[in-house]
Amino acid sequence: MISVSVLGASGYTGGELLRWLHGHPGVRIAHLGAHTRSGEAVEAVWPHMRSLSSAELAAPDPGRVAEDSDLVFLALPSGASMDVVPTLLEAGTRVVDLGADFRLTDAGSYERWYGHEHTAPKLLAEAVYGLPEMFCEAIRGARLVANPGCYPTATALALFPLQREGLIQGAVVVDAKSGVSGAGRTPSLHTSFSEVDGNVRPYSVGEHRHTPEIEQTLSGQGAPIRLFFVPHLIPMTRGVLASCYVRLNGEMRQQEILDLYGATYASSPFVRVMEELPQTKATLASNFCDVTVRVDARTGQATAIAAIDNLVKGAAGQAIQNMNLMFGLPETEGLWTVPVFP
Amino acid sequence: MISVSVLGASGYTGGELLRWLHGHPGVRIAHLGAHTRSGEAVEAVWPHMRSLSSAELAAPDPGRVAEDSDLVFLALPSGASMDVVPTLLEAGTRVVDLGADFRLTDAGSYERWYGHEHTAPKLLAEAVYGLPEMFCEAIRGARLVANPGCYPTATALALFPLQREGLIQGAVVVDAKSGVSGAGRTPSLHTSFSEVDGNVRPYSVGEHRHTPEIEQTLSGQGAPIRLFFVPHLIPMTRGVLASCYVRLNGEMRQQEILDLYGATYASSPFVRVMEELPQTKATLASNFCDVTVRVDARTGQATAIAAIDNLVKGAAGQAIQNMNLMFGLPETEGLWTVPVFP
Amino acid sequence: MISVSVLGASGYTGGELLRWLHGHPGVRIAHLGAHTRSGEAVEAVWPHMRSLSSAELAAPDPGRVAEDSDLVFLALPSGASMDVVPTLLEAGTRVVDLGADFRLTDAGSYERWYGHEHTAPKLLAEAVYGLPEMFCEAIRGARLVANPGCYPTATALALFPLQREGLIQGAVVVDAKSGVSGAGRTPSLHTSFSEVDGNVRPYSVGEHRHTPEIEQTLSGQGAPIRLFFVPHLIPMTRGVLASCYVRLNGEMRQQEILDLYGATYASSPFVRVMEELPQTKATLASNFCDVTVRVDARTGQATAIAAIDNLVKGAAGQAIQNMNLMFGLPETEGLWTVPVFP
Amino acid sequence: MISVSVLGASGYTGGELLRWLHGHPGVRIAHLGAHTRSGEAVEAVWPHMRSLSSAELAAPDPGRVAEDSDLVFLALPSGASMDVVPTLLEAGTRVVDLGADFRLTDAGSYERWYGHEHTAPKLLAEAVYGLPEMFCEAIRGARLVANPGCYPTATALALFPLQREGLIQGAVVVDAKSGVSGAGRTPSLHTSFSEVDGNVRPYSVGEHRHTPEIEQTLSGQGAPIRLFFVPHLIPMTRGVLASCYVRLNGEMRQQEILDLYGATYASSPFVRVMEELPQTKATLASNFCDVTVRVDARTGQATAIAAIDNLVKGAAGQAIQNMNLMFGLPETEGLWTVPVFP
Repeated sequence: MISVSVLGASGYTGGELLRWLHGHPGVRIAHLGAHTRSGEAVEAVWPHMRSLSSAELAAPDPGRVAEDSDLVFLALPSGASMDVVPTLLEAGTRVVDLGADFRLTDAGSYERWYGHEHTAPKLLAEAVYGLPEMFCEAIRGARLVANPGCYPTATALALFPLQREGLIQGAVVVDAKSGVSGAGRTPSLHTSFSEVDGNVRPYSVGEHRHTPEIEQTLSGQGAPIRLFFVPHLIPMTRGVLASCYVRLNGEMRQQEILDLYGATYASSPFVRVMEELPQTKATLASNFCDVTVRVDARTGQATAIAAIDNLVKGAAGQAIQNMNLMFGLPETEGLWTVPVFP
Repeated sequence: MISVSVLGASGYTGGELLRWLHGHPGVRIAHLGAHTRSGEAVEAVWPHMRSLSSAELAAPDPGRVAEDSDLVFLALPSGASMDVVPTLLEAGTRVVDLGADFRLTDAGSYERWYGHEHTAPKLLAEAVYGLPEMFCEAIRGARLVANPGCYPTATALALFPLQREGLIQGAVVVDAKSGVSGAGRTPSLHTSFSEVDGNVRPYSVGEHRHTPEIEQTLSGQGAPIRLFFVPHLIPMTRGVLASCYVRLNGEMRQQEILDLYGATYASSPFVRVMEELPQTKATLASNFCDVTVRVDARTGQATAIAAIDNLVKGAAGQAIQNMNLMFGLPETEGLWTVPVFP
Repeated sequence: MISVSVLGASGYTGGELLRWLHGHPGVRIAHLGAHTRSGEAVEAVWPHMRSLSSAELAAPDPGRVAEDSDLVFLALPSGASMDVVPTLLEAGTRVVDLGADFRLTDAGSYERWYGHEHTAPKLLAEAVYGLPEMFCEAIRGARLVANPGCYPTATALALFPLQREGLIQGAVVVDAKSGVSGAGRTPSLHTSFSEVDGNVRPYSVGEHRHTPEIEQTLSGQGAPIRLFFVPHLIPMTRGVLASCYVRLNGEMRQQEILDLYGATYASSPFVRVMEELPQTKATLASNFCDVTVRVDARTGQATAIAAIDNLVKGAAGQAIQNMNLMFGLPETEGLWTVPVFP
Repeated sequence: MISVSVLGASGYTGGELLRWLHGHPGVRIAHLGAHTRSGEAVEAVWPHMRSLSSAELAAPDPGRVAEDSDLVFLALPSGASMDVVPTLLEAGTRVVDLGADFRLTDAGSYERWYGHEHTAPKLLAEAVYGLPEMFCEAIRGARLVANPGCYPTATALALFPLQREGLIQGAVVVDAKSGVSGAGRTPSLHTSFSEVDGNVRPYSVGEHRHTPEIEQTLSGQGAPIRLFFVPHLIPMTRGVLASCYVRLNGEMRQQEILDLYGATYASSPFVRVMEELPQTKATLASNFCDVTVRVDARTGQATAIAAIDNLVKGAAGQAIQNMNLMFGLPETEGLWTVPVFP
């Protein structure tokens, strides 16, 4: 049994980790940390966990957590992980960080996009980007895994086969649609029901912090790539759909490209390459990423479309998938569930 | 391994059965029948099942199905089960019928509420009502289990402890709120997104067919009971919340009643008795039923409130729970999952 | 032209007042006050008002407001109106208060339900309860109108004809369903999209502050009445549906009661008595209240059901209706619009 | 008073026409035609029209309709208008067709995209495309106005200023998000609540029939233009948001382009050019189109974004706006209402 802890257990990502860890046959939970709701019972914070946990959230003490844990999941607010990770690693614990602190390899880029200095820049080189479909081997041996965000997961998986084959010409437009849970559990006007219901709203046009993360991931697989990333908030709780628009280098037919995708993901159990158009609901509450490509002969444009559940393949599920790899378990252990439909 | 078949695999109840059966360690699927979409692959009918099933739906042949199955789940339109059940039972197969055909014990009552004759009235006496929290022992030995509807499950579990103790005085008002999936997958104006979104609508006031089913179930546990059952359609996909209003016989304090509920359901793993008010979302995609009671000293009224996922505890999950009992498995086998939240 | 001001223009009720006042041919706006967002342009606070208003919100100075206004609408947080109303009335301005401060006639009752002392108890006797269908004449001459809440409007209009005829026996159960905008614009976990979407949740069972307001209103029309009031939050933005359960005194057929309702509301243009079951969406964005009654012979129970848009007939629309009466305009002036459907 | 008739009064577009015509001071309704629900009262078909109309829907007789009408609105299924328009025009009535039959000027293009022959090709040259912001003068004198679809309205208004100035380079990607009411009132699996709720789904990628309509409209204002048009269905009832991605010819700063938009639409009362990002909810139930542009220096890409209510500016409201122009009324007559928010 792997002994794991979760710091940040009162946010949506933390709550989703609890759900998956509960159903995982190979783990036991050591500590659950939370800044804002420490001292409360899990079932007071999480209505779905009632009768399923008698644990309590506690103000996290990284030293003690490290002592009792083989692996710590960090589901903390942006900027909080880099204060904790050095302590955890020094104590010999491995870490999957679900936040953004260790995703960019370049401290300067981090500071430009996040607006403050990085306090543990030396660890950036060591951190492995936790997208198993691309970095499986490195993840297995990693001490510190930077779990990708929801937009980067969907976008990178949609574009990876095209990028690796050098098929992308010029800048890529990514028009992403996200459910509201991606914005976290802290109440705000922008995520209030009455403001979101019956509404679609673009935000952070060209300025979203996930942009450099995706560019870095894909540029590492071929020529440097530039993204015009435009996220939209839509009235649903879970799900991200990324519609990625590219001009193709050379002429390829739809079927050739689908075959390329099929081949690329042949050994990736959670990527479902399909002829049909993906929809987020077909991935609900599961770790699947559904992908297709459409080539438009009239305009010479193509679109690669990926759908995920942002809290699963875009956060907690992927973190478990990384844990499985890090500890030599089958990649699908505890994750091979059917999406909830409708 | 139990060999099971599903007839009616193209409706929401059937689709949900597929989801749970896929994750159940003790079953294998023999046949999947469907009237309207026979010949289609499971993954063409059910987007969530993509890559998880290579089966095809076929026009059901009850004889062949019976031959290959230890148990057949029937998720057929109202009135269709009674044509199939005799054949299945004669062939030695056991049956869990998720439809309404065998829920009422009295053929006359069936005809009054359903508007047509019952064609297999002799089996009504044999059929066991599949509410495990009340009829556990009978279910274990049953050949034919009549799986309760979603409203009856929530209402009966909310009222059972009060009724058994003789605490209910006069008629009970049940104000129920249901998600739209309870109306099935066949398109209709009343379940179209644009008509349901942003809307709450009562229907079948005092005339819903689940009324006699609930009255029969509860009357069997004490004095005859009469229900004024008023369902409302609300803009969500899954979930039923039943707010049951009773005048109490005698004075009981809130805590005494909660204790009574706790004792009643002490050995029912899927009923979560709680002080807090239930909400449907805390049961989403799970087999739990969350229940509480509130006594109002000012008016002498009380309300017992239950929340379930209509497609799970109100349909497919409960059917699996019945199967577990019928085949000597642990009641929670393949069903002990955390609800999806948010 | 009536010169009107709105204090509390940054909440949903205030925003809805702006919408209706903009389309009203007989008013001009003097001042718009807001505590939290003073100094901001109307169109910065309210996206729908873009290009329709060049006004700014200002920290309210009751003295100056009174000077410039024939009528002041107060859309303030609970407890804030009683600090302002005396100043306004002394300056000769008339007031429609959309908050709860002047709805209860008894200061003791106010203190019991609201938990703090009333600071202007002398005005409680003068305030007229602003439900035009019941208190039309008194409203015309009033200086201070206490505009009813959304639940009391729907419930009182549903029960008024029965109560006036002495047809109600014993306590009444009111099971109400509300959209989320009724909780106001201040962000909170309970009104966050991800928590509300796909969920139905009862709250304040038997303890909601609207309870004494409804009891007072109806008790004034007949025998004292007791309500067990149980509100539920459902996933929609606007709308309240009140399902009111009563035992009838004596035997009356459905049609007789519908006729009674028709007669009661014959001169109330905004109450639509109907045979069909009401649904909130048929009243969206309008000042209508749709009402019906169903008698259930089996159980001796009946239900009176009313649907409104909580921000219109349950708040801003009704306030305009009261203004029309107070200033001798036709009751429907500026309010006679078709609901938005779908 | 203009005497108007509506053929196709039982669909969502027809129902929305009824709403706007009811509030328009300059019209009276002559006939209401409907194929499927003829013989039914308006208030039986449309719950929001209760007590506001005593009219009945009738099977349309074009000859009689023409006799009594100055103007006929056609809100018929695709392909049905071309059978009716010749009769109406010959009888001297003017027509606003809200369907697609007369939007394309080229019969060959019509046949390619709609899959059947055009039966009144001679009228294609006469029909005026009813986008008032671009074709105001021609609309005034037109006998036959082809009212644009919802996607073309949003897209053309988003791109018109850029296209007229020759600023667009290469193919344009249009990623559009639509509410469900755009698919009409006929029930289907794809518009069922349970399938749409919590889901986002692309469809008709590169093949949507609105594509040639937009290309024709914009190509007429400058160089020929090609669109890769990708619509998405999202879980809301009303609203279209079009995110249009272009590479700009030459370097222009954000503010210059916004100024260009401001100048282009200076005399268009329903287009609100704004610095903020549009959201559909800010236009709900109104005839406004909210537009902005964002230039991304990093990638050399820009996006023009427009939001409308698909049933108003994308259908019925625009039709009324065209009527106002055709009959010499102020363009905003009966249309100058505040959007409903929230």
